[in-house]
Amino acid sequence: MCGNCDYTIHGRHHHFGWDNSLPPVQRVAPGSTLEFNCLDSGNGHFTRDSTVADVSSMDFGKVNPVTGPIHVDGAQPGDALKIEILSFTPSGFGWTANIPGFGLLADQFPDPALALWSYDAVSLAPALYGSHAKVPLKPFAGTIGVAPAEAGLLSVVPPRRVGGNLDIRDLAAGTTLYLPVEVEGALFSIGDTHAAQGDGEVCGTAIESAMDVALRLELVKDANLAMPRFSTPGPVTRHLDVDGYEVTTGVGSDLMEGARAAVSGMIDLLGKWRGLSPEDAYMLCSVCGDLRISEIVDQPNWVVSFYFPRVVFS
Amino acid sequence: MCGNCDYTIHGRHHHFGWDNSLPPVQRVAPGSTLEFNCLDSGNGHFTRDSTVADVSSMDFGKVNPVTGPIHVDGAQPGDALKIEILSFTPSGFGWTANIPGFGLLADQFPDPALALWSYDAVSLAPALYGSHAKVPLKPFAGTIGVAPAEAGLLSVVPPRRVGGNLDIRDLAAGTTLYLPVEVEGALFSIGDTHAAQGDGEVCGTAIESAMDVALRLELVKDANLAMPRFSTPGPVTRHLDVDGYEVTTGVGSDLMEGARAAVSGMIDLLGKWRGLSPEDAYMLCSVCGDLRISEIVDQPNWVVSFYFPRVVFS
Repeated sequence: MCGNCDYTIHGRHHHFGWDNSLPPVQRVAPGSTLEFNCLDSGNGHFTRDSTVADVSSMDFGKVNPVTGPIHVDGAQPGDALKIEILSFTPSGFGWTANIPGFGLLADQFPDPALALWSYDAVSLAPALYGSHAKVPLKPFAGTIGVAPAEAGLLSVVPPRRVGGNLDIRDLAAGTTLYLPVEVEGALFSIGDTHAAQGDGEVCGTAIESAMDVALRLELVKDANLAMPRFSTPGPVTRHLDVDGYEVTTGVGSDLMEGARAAVSGMIDLLGKWRGLSPEDAYMLCSVCGDLRISEIVDQPNWVVSFYFPRVVFS
Repeated sequence: MCGNCDYTIHGRHHHFGWDNSLPPVQRVAPGSTLEFNCLDSGNGHFTRDSTVADVSSMDFGKVNPVTGPIHVDGAQPGDALKIEILSFTPSGFGWTANIPGFGLLADQFPDPALALWSYDAVSLAPALYGSHAKVPLKPFAGTIGVAPAEAGLLSVVPPRRVGGNLDIRDLAAGTTLYLPVEVEGALFSIGDTHAAQGDGEVCGTAIESAMDVALRLELVKDANLAMPRFSTPGPVTRHLDVDGYEVTTGVGSDLMEGARAAVSGMIDLLGKWRGLSPEDAYMLCSVCGDLRISEIVDQPNWVVSFYFPRVVFS
């Protein structure tokens, strides 16, 4: 809990999808601090007693609720909203699912799968993934954005230049994010909090986990940002890197196919090396493995690499 | 110099392009250690006295020489060649160029540019980029591969599943690389050594620098690898990460366009923040900034991020 925040925005003030006609739940001056009570991306569907059968009963009209919107006084199109991400207060419970039809390898993983996580919300010690692995945690908000200029109700699923479902795992405490403002008041909302995720979020879900998030909203007038940008206060992968990485690659003329080949290669390797089932390996890759573009200039073939941190097995 | 290596392969034993009919310059048993004298990717074209005019006089029929090929006894298609990368002995001189028509933003950078580097080959202290920055070094071989099964002379530029111009900056000392073997004897060659490079090698060149490379070649029979993979002995970005990162993004439905937007955003930012010219910023991005795929599942938009390490300015 953020005892010093200027405002607390309760989880009941949430919405599904982006719509710049939604009335703000709070108007704040630039420089204000706010604590947001963020629901998980499943809107509370999963509990500690859930089974894989519950994946099929999700209500896809009610996924990824975001808390807000917040009207920031004086924000105008062309400005940037500067978001200082102060702290996270996680719930201690999380879930990761393979949702049929969703994810980088959706064609290869047609069946639902579910992993439940219980973690120490105070110590944030690495979380047990069954008996297979221990995953270092780094909480962040998967969805963080302002209202698009485009009218009407827009899906929350795709990120846009105004942010939204960015799923950038380095938007952790201490990071400052800048988002292009497209409407008067900016209309900021946040949700989809994750206890951990790898770059790519390859199976489509992270460690999905309800949390409170404290942050400060400022304006940068006339920033004319083309796209979101952010600044990290220090290293971003030291929670993962101490024992090095196993890395698989995808070499070819299409970055998407390269990414798919690299992740498929890692799922194969985790099966042979650690005995993980393909489903378990795929979900583990999503919460701790990283997609990088090693080379994007040696025409006509590019190299996408998937970095899996060995520390989860130590 | 590798005083204990079983073989020394001199730089005069180089070839241009891949061709599985090239006669091996050495036959070795699995387990052998070899030191390769690697020419730089410009084949010695650039010197400490070079100017930007020399970019235009490069002979593109003589770029990226690789030293080899080495026949490994017993290697057969379906095996993997295991390459333990032992050490690098760099020359202390390097170059980075924007070569017209080449690079991620070739359309935006039509004019040649050249940066020369002089670095301490023993201490490997961060190298001065004019008065702009100091770039931490991490030597590796940009081109490392075995002969493709496909007959004829194939361009050295694109990497393939047998490796080649992978430009994976984490193939540094201590790393073990596995390459799929496609022809009897494997026919291993190496070159295109770099003193430093970011993930992506966005302008098309790194700190191109001649070096000697020591490594051990082993076989893994019947590995049936689909693509190259490697294992790092420890962290891979600690030489860069201590002061955190400035990060720009590209959000959209095409990973290549996302990468271009992210790098363009960083070039703009480096201009505003540090006063770098676009050309200087582009080349600096290539030698120390990293392309990552933050999100590849939130259809139909993906997020590519470009991480620029602030340590180069500290």
